Formats: sequence, structure tokens, C-alpha cells
Amino acid sequence: MQNKFIKQTMLNFLNNRKTIRKYQQKEVDDTLIAELLEAAFRASTTGNMQLYSVVVTKDEQQKERLAPAHFNQPTFKNAPVSLTFCADFNRFNKWCEQRNAQPGYDNFLSFTTAAIDALLVAQTFCIAAESKGLGICYLGTVTYNAKKIAEILNLPKFVVPIATITLGYPDENPAQTDRLPAKGLIHWETYEDYSNEAINNLYLQKENLPENKKFIIENNKETLAQVFTDVRYKKADNEFFSESFLGFLKEQGFLSCLEP
Amino acid sequence: MQNKFIKQTMLNFLNNRKTIRKYQQKEVDDTLIAELLEAAFRASTTGNMQLYSVVVTKDEQQKERLAPAHFNQPTFKNAPVSLTFCADFNRFNKWCEQRNAQPGYDNFLSFTTAAIDALLVAQTFCIAAESKGLGICYLGTVTYNAKKIAEILNLPKFVVPIATITLGYPDENPAQTDRLPAKGLIHWETYEDYSNEAINNLYLQKENLPENKKFIIENNKETLAQVFTDVRYKKADNEFFSESFLGFLKEQGFLSCLEP
Repeated sequence: MQNKFIKQTMLNFLNNRKTIRKYQQKEVDDTLIAELLEAAFRASTTGNMQLYSVVVTKDEQQKERLAPAHFNQPTFKNAPVSLTFCADFNRFNKWCEQRNAQPGYDNFLSFTTAAIDALLVAQTFCIAAESKGLGICYLGTVTYNAKKIAEILNLPKFVVPIATITLGYPDENPAQTDRLPAKGLIHWETYEDYSNEAINNLYLQKENLPENKKFIIENNKETLAQVFTDVRYKKADNEFFSESFLGFLKEQGFLSCLEP
Repeated sequence: MQNKFIKQTMLNFLNNRKTIRKYQQKEVDDTLIAELLEAAFRASTTGNMQLYSVVVTKDEQQKERLAPAHFNQPTFKNAPVSLTFCADFNRFNKWCEQRNAQPGYDNFLSFTTAAIDALLVAQTFCIAAESKGLGICYLGTVTYNAKKIAEILNLPKFVVPIATITLGYPDENPAQTDRLPAKGLIHWETYEDYSNEAINNLYLQKENLPENKKFIIENNKETLAQVFTDVRYKKADNEFFSESFLGFLKEQGFLSCLEP
């Protein structure tokens, strides 16, 4: 019976999801958070190593400390809870060392493996949370300011925050955002590179949305793409945060190969 | 009504999932795959940029070409379908260039952003697929042999495969694998580092499982941790694949900061 309901309703449920940025000032129960996380820990994990940890933030003081690292986004300040999903080789390394085994995980591949593990858990958590009527929003700021966040959350070496989500009961019911036509993102057998015409077709609907046209005018740009390259995700910022994130990975012990 | 069913059954569904490594020789319909992917594309994405592409492999010849890059794992050879989820800035860059905008995404942060986008889609796809009675397995080999895989799938610059999953109707019903006690992976407010005793308690159940005890004997090791460090995930292999993965990221255009 259960499977029948899931089979009938899952795609509909996923197709109708929305990111939520405004939350009711209603507590999210610790027991519920733990229950959602336990279900999320059933996500696939490399070699069943479970290379992740989750830090839950509810305390107002912790939230205030973290807010600047998330650029004081209203979503973060407004949310009753945030969760930071971390790539974590610290626990596994400690286990190895206590069991007369020499861990060899101070490298980029191991970071990637742990980051993948953590992200599969984060996304499963989000789907579980949304099924219970909660809303979530991912904050890109977590990789921009990973070092600051790690300091505030007291993350030891071999632990790197890779996803922060805000969580709470929705206090808004926004329209669904647009998506590119799905078939343009699916390649059968081999990647079919995009012709100029294919690009024009793919982005046509997005470029014609009134909110995106407004966005161009507000930002005093010629095209929507320029809003991304010149305002929202600028080369100089990307380069600055690339350097700080790589530096932090090194500090956390994951880039021994790049040492001189 | 729909939400009521989802609310009641989602956690149960997630808590009972299992990775499937043996599949029936039954086709998975292209329309179903596209429908599952479309739902997966509703996953959160940075700035709604949708920095991913998915390559579907069903063709026997493509499968034969890819198999060595996945170390000829029986799971890969046995599966009727595999999907490779890629971090993709190629499409976005092309759009920018056609719209008189200068993309600044040739850096590590942008790779990380796109990889996160792709992984959220991959995991949402897996949950959608499992809801339809399909089984999935993630293959860690995708990051080990990203370059070879990219060549076979014809991935251009700024596209990096980050997750490959096999897909098919289950032809096995394995026992659920163990997981560490959930509360040991959840930290409230700050990361509580693991004492020796905490590590012992966390890993006790895992170490006492008959299959894991057998694993130690079969591999002629003293401890389960040694099976990981000395046999399954060895330092030398991790270092070798770190170098090749970083080298590939550079080739694909994502590490301009590390250029001399």
C-alpha cells in the first residue's frame, strides 16, 4: 500500500516543490529534525563510510555569529533553524587511528568523496523535510565563507562545510521559478554540444519572463546574462572565493598534494 | 490529499531504501527516464543557473567502452542503464558569450557550485526512480576516471562528470546495510569532537556484524579499519586519483588559478 501511494504521488510532489525563503516564527522540533536526518542518512554513501556530519543551528547567539558569514541574508536571519552539512573525514580518521590503521585521506579525492556523501544526505534531508510541510533554502555562501563558518561551528581538521540550508514552516507561497526545457539538459549516449540556435531556443522562455526583463532594467544591463556575469556571480568574486576555499581545504588537511 | 500521503509515507519510504546492484534484463523506458529527470531538475540550483547536464547510457557499445573506466564492475555491466551527472558550465558560458556577457567561471569555486547543483539533481533523481520501483547504485569510479569517461561521453571543456549511477528494475532483495547511530553524526550548535570512547561506541555495532568480521578474516587483517586503509581505499590510490582528477579539472578549464 505504502509503495502504491509513493509511486503515484512522488513525481507530483517533486514537480511542485518550491524553495522557501520566509518562515513562520514557529519552532521546528529537535525530535523531528533528528528523525528527518536519520532518514537522510539512508542515502548512498561511498563504501558505507558515511563521510559527513551535520551541525544544527537554532541558538540565537550562534545564528548572530553566523549571519555575517552568510552575508546577513534575510533568509538566514529569518529562519528558525539552519543545518550545515559537512564533508567529514575526521571521525573516520580517528576510528582508523584507534584501530591500528593508517588513514590515507589527506587528499583532494577524499575531500570530493566526502563532499559527495554530504550532499546526497543534504538533498535527501530537504526532500524529507518538505514532505513534512517544512520549507528549505540552500545558501551558496557556505563555500564562500567556509573558514569563518568552520570557526564558529568549531569544525576540526578534515571537516569542511559544503551545504547550508535554512529550515522552517513556510510563511510565503511563491510562484514556482522557471526551469530550462528539460530535454535541453539531457544527452542520450553522448553530449551534444550546443549550437547558437540551441542556446537561443533553450533560454528563450527565461529571457522573455517579465521578472527577468525587469531584472535587466533594474541592474542597468543589456542582457540577462550580463546580470549574472557583472552583478550576481562576478569573475573577481569567484576568483577571490576560489582562492579562499582552496586555502581552507589545504588548512583542513585535504590538499597535501599541493604542498611544496 | 496528495500531501497527506506523502507526509505519512515519505520517511518510511526513505528509511527502507536499499542500494540495488543486480537488475532484471528489462528495459527502462526513455520516457520514464526523461520524466524522472524533469522532476529531478526541480531540485535547488544556485541562482537558478542549472549548472548540470545528464548523459544517459543505454547503448551496448557505449556501455562496453565505459566499462573499463568503471573497473568492469559487475553492477555497471549488468545494469540496463547508467546516468552520468555532470557539473556543466559549458552551456551557461555559451549563453553568456552569445549575449555580450563575459563569463568568469574558469575557477574552482564555479566548479564546486556546478558540482553541488549536479549532485542535488542526481540524488533527487535517485529518490524519484526508487519511488517508481527502480533500483540505483552510485559508482565511485566516476571521479577516479573522470577524464576517460569524459572522452567516451564527448564532454567539452567546462563539463565534469561527478556522479554515475546505474539504474534498472531490481533482481535482488538484499538486507539493508548498517548505518552508524544517527545521533553520533548530528551536532547541536557546535561540532563536538569525538573522544576515544565516543569512537568505540559509534563503531561497536558495525565492528560486531558477522559480515564485517568475515571481511577482516578474508582480507587477512587485524581490524575492519585496516580493510579500508590497506585494501579498499588506499593512500596510494587516493593520491593517484587526486592528481588525475585535479589535472582533469585544470584541462576542463576550472583551475585557472593554479596556472603558473
